[in-house]
This record gives sequence, C-alpha cells and structure tokens, in this order.
Amino acid sequence: MADILHRVGIKDSAPEKVYQALTTVDGLADWWTVDTEGSAGIVGGIVRFRFAVGGFDMEVVELRPSERVVWRVVDGPEEWIGTTVEWKLRQEGDYAIVLFGHQGWKEPVEFMHHCSTKWGSFLMSLKSLLETGEGAPAPRDVQISDWH
Amino acid sequence: MADILHRVGIKDSAPEKVYQALTTVDGLADWWTVDTEGSAGIVGGIVRFRFAVGGFDMEVVELRPSERVVWRVVDGPEEWIGTTVEWKLRQEGDYAIVLFGHQGWKEPVEFMHHCSTKWGSFLMSLKSLLETGEGAPAPRDVQISDWH
Repeated sequence: MADILHRVGIKDSAPEKVYQALTTVDGLADWWTVDTEGSAGIVGGIVRFRFAVGGFDMEVVELRPSERVVWRVVDGPEEWIGTTVEWKLRQEGDYAIVLFGHQGWKEPVEFMHHCSTKWGSFLMSLKSLLETGEGAPAPRDVQISDWH
Repeated sequence: MADILHRVGIKDSAPEKVYQALTTVDGLADWWTVDTEGSAGIVGGIVRFRFAVGGFDMEVVELRPSERVVWRVVDGPEEWIGTTVEWKLRQEGDYAIVLFGHQGWKEPVEFMHHCSTKWGSFLMSLKSLLETGEGAPAPRDVQISDWH
C-alpha cells in the first residue's frame, strides 16, 4: 500500500472555512473542478467530480465539522477505486492547517506520482481560494505535465 | 517505510537539460536554494543545501547522465538522515519527464506531509526554470504554510 500525503497552511483562515470548501458543491467547484455535482455535506452522499478527461465519484464516509472529512472513491480510474481521501483540519495560530492523505494505493505506479504532484497543486488552489477569493479549479488548473 | 513521489513534465525540454540542473551547483541554485555549495557532478561528492532555517547535506550516490540521479541524505533534520532522493529522467514527445522519489522515511509524520507538498512546489520551480529561464529557489520560494 502507498499513500499520497500533503500539508498546507492557509493564512488568516479557520478550519470552519476549509470545511465549507470541502463539504459544499460550490466550495469544491471553486478549487478542484468547476464540474462538481452531488451531495458533499452528508454521510453516504455521492459527489461527482469531472475533468476534461474522466473524473471521480466519491462517497462521503465521515464528516466531523471543522475537523475531518473522509471520502471513498467509488468510481473513476481503476487505480483510484477503493482508495480513500482524508482531510484533517485544525487551527495553528493564524493558520488553518490541512493534513491531506490519499491512501490505499495498491502500487506506487507512475500515475500515483502524477496524482501526488497534482493534489499538491490543487491544495495550493484551495489555499489561494481561501486567502484571496480566487482558486484555480479545472479547467483553469495549473498544468504540471503532458498528463495535465 | 514511506515515500514521497512526484511526476512533472517539462515542455520543450530534454533529459540532458534536467540532468544539468540536478548535477551542477549553479543549476541547483536556480530552482531549489540559492545557497547551494559542493560537488554535485561526481559520485561521492557532497552537496550542501541551506535555507533560512537549517538545510541538508546530500551525498551523490549514483549518476547516469540524462537518466538517473540518486542522493543520500547525510546531514539535516533527523527524519531526513538516511533517506534517499531519486530522480529518473526520460523523453516523452515534447516533454522531459521527471519521476521523483524521496524514499525511506521511517514514519509518515506531519513533517513528511509538509515536505511532500514542498517538493511538489520545488519541482514546479525546476519546470519553470527550464521552460521560462526563471525558477523560484529559496529564499524566493512559494510559501505553502506556517512552516514555509
């Protein structure tokens, strides 16, 4: 098993605001992909994220307001299915700290390397959204390679 | 054991150019930290990377021109010592592909989450350097959190 891990700190923000951006369709559309639909704010809800090529369906499996969000990937690329995406939030001085894990990859394939860098870039989009009001969700996301 | 993995593609570039940026002090100073000294281009060489707070000493353990570079961390934060940093390079159409691994972390501690995001950001600096002539090495690196 292999995990993608990240940490960002969002200045002059709070876990409540990050939680909003992770548990509402409008919030998610502002930093990950504008093509987001479904139910992000209830346990058992399904959220559909779509990109120019393909996408992911996530089931919300845990919600602890302002502390923790967990999704399970129920549809998408084969390597993603069954993996979990976990967000842990806390306050640290002026910063809202986000600890991120995309866990349970069967193998550290090249696609996992790509997704790791891409997640880092999308976390910077989330940070930017909360610090400046402007994220960089797909399709105006930062291109990191030939795989976008 | 836990690994940090990343992948970027550098447009209109070539593995030779990435290799230069990884095996010369001037190249490294242009994307990672301006305070770089030592011998990056010979196996057994030691390279010293310094930042506002602390730094890392790496021993060059493998060099395969335009294909592969491996460093071993010989001094720095306790969690880094003994870990390895591996760069695999190849051409893919117009892109120089960089597969990166910072491997052998004993535990997936919070500092590892931070380093993962920070490495992703520095890989984007390397990409920018080769695509535009301008990287973002420390101290003008992108700030990702309260830990910088």
